[in-house]
Amino acid sequence: MISVVVIGAGNVGSHLVKAFQSAEKVNLVQWYSRDKMSIKAPTKGIELCNDLKDLKSADIYIIAVTDKAIEALSKQLPFENRLVVHTSGSVALKKLDMKHKRGVFYPLQTFSKTSDLEFSEVPFCIETMNKEDSGQLKTLATYMGSPSYMINTEQRQALHLSAVFINNFSNQMYRIAHELSDYKSVNFDVLKPLILETAKKVQFTSPYNAQTGPAKRNDQVTINHHLRTLESHPDYQLLYKKLTNSIKTTHGLKKL
Amino acid sequence: MISVVVIGAGNVGSHLVKAFQSAEKVNLVQWYSRDKMSIKAPTKGIELCNDLKDLKSADIYIIAVTDKAIEALSKQLPFENRLVVHTSGSVALKKLDMKHKRGVFYPLQTFSKTSDLEFSEVPFCIETMNKEDSGQLKTLATYMGSPSYMINTEQRQALHLSAVFINNFSNQMYRIAHELSDYKSVNFDVLKPLILETAKKVQFTSPYNAQTGPAKRNDQVTINHHLRTLESHPDYQLLYKKLTNSIKTTHGLKKL
Repeated sequence: MISVVVIGAGNVGSHLVKAFQSAEKVNLVQWYSRDKMSIKAPTKGIELCNDLKDLKSADIYIIAVTDKAIEALSKQLPFENRLVVHTSGSVALKKLDMKHKRGVFYPLQTFSKTSDLEFSEVPFCIETMNKEDSGQLKTLATYMGSPSYMINTEQRQALHLSAVFINNFSNQMYRIAHELSDYKSVNFDVLKPLILETAKKVQFTSPYNAQTGPAKRNDQVTINHHLRTLESHPDYQLLYKKLTNSIKTTHGLKKL
Repeated sequence: MISVVVIGAGNVGSHLVKAFQSAEKVNLVQWYSRDKMSIKAPTKGIELCNDLKDLKSADIYIIAVTDKAIEALSKQLPFENRLVVHTSGSVALKKLDMKHKRGVFYPLQTFSKTSDLEFSEVPFCIETMNKEDSGQLKTLATYMGSPSYMINTEQRQALHLSAVFINNFSNQMYRIAHELSDYKSVNFDVLKPLILETAKKVQFTSPYNAQTGPAKRNDQVTINHHLRTLESHPDYQLLYKKLTNSIKTTHGLKKL
């Protein structure tokens, strides 16, 4: 059994609380939010807390607040020498106050308040100052049914940056496709299976090997046709050029 | 029962043949390839053909060859007034010789020779000169277990362009993430669940609403941190800026 306190009631905090509630071997001692009223998730059977002085004893304190609030909050915790971890992809481990046993428990996944997520699909990146603490965080991940990886600060920051390309930038590709199809009154549903298949393909083959299309084929006729079609969307025309050149560079082809 | 002849043994042709073989109500009459030896798929029980003069009678002739070969091939077909369709996302319907009943049967999906694909996940975009022919193509899609949509040439070309953003450009985002994580010796597997979840999310919510991250939050501290990390990859640093600005424009924020 591992006992935890969750600090913060944003997306990550709320999902963690939910996961801990359904994990048999995890005891959620308290859920702290500066403003208890701001908690939108069901809180039945959970001890809420809005004053750091009231925090109870637990094996692990998980700080799931915005990046810039982590450092100050870790200082304010009214105890020392307990395991305190943050969940951020970009904040250094050392930003946590050194009076604590310090760690990072970063879930590399996209969370939304509205949709549920299987925690088996949430890999945790773990970093700690002491080796025995990493063991405890690994066990916590196991209790949640999640894979975990030992990742240092520099690696975590590279992953966080990579996640922006994968999540935010791919999503912007979907958005552009949504606009372009909408512009010609085509239902976006037609494109949804392609979105899924594109993601599934790289689960088993590298993105390098998965690449297809006019840039990879060096098919200038199709590229020119697309660029003409994009004359009504100059921003997207420019992005099309840059991204086509990026693919060409990756595959050793001459740029546009 | 619908009888078909497949012309071409590339990715699309090979997948269609496989789908037709397992579709009870489709009779695959022949599979034409200029070079029979080039066919890598199993051909047991299929009548192969490498001379257009030997083509037999069928309800639908499906031309699945490279875009630039479609027009000439449709002229060479030694019959007229039969339903001849191509499978290209970008070639106009009218490029098919007018001696035929003409149509398009464009599968909007990414195909690879190595991996199987459920045809229930392959939407077909249908366009024809005559209404009754579209009914027959719709039935063919139904027999394959595939959804289908009536799409005109201009719409199909917008979809083809959209598919480049969704498939090729998202895949390049994955590739960049692969490079960035590899550069810090992080296993790309850590990022795979995020790739899938990003794609799943927009099956039920719009890409606009699904967007998260530093660009959408207007989080300049994180953006600057990422740009510094990318100093070792100037091409990707530039792409990061352009894509961040694209998200900011979409969400009404001031550009970098």
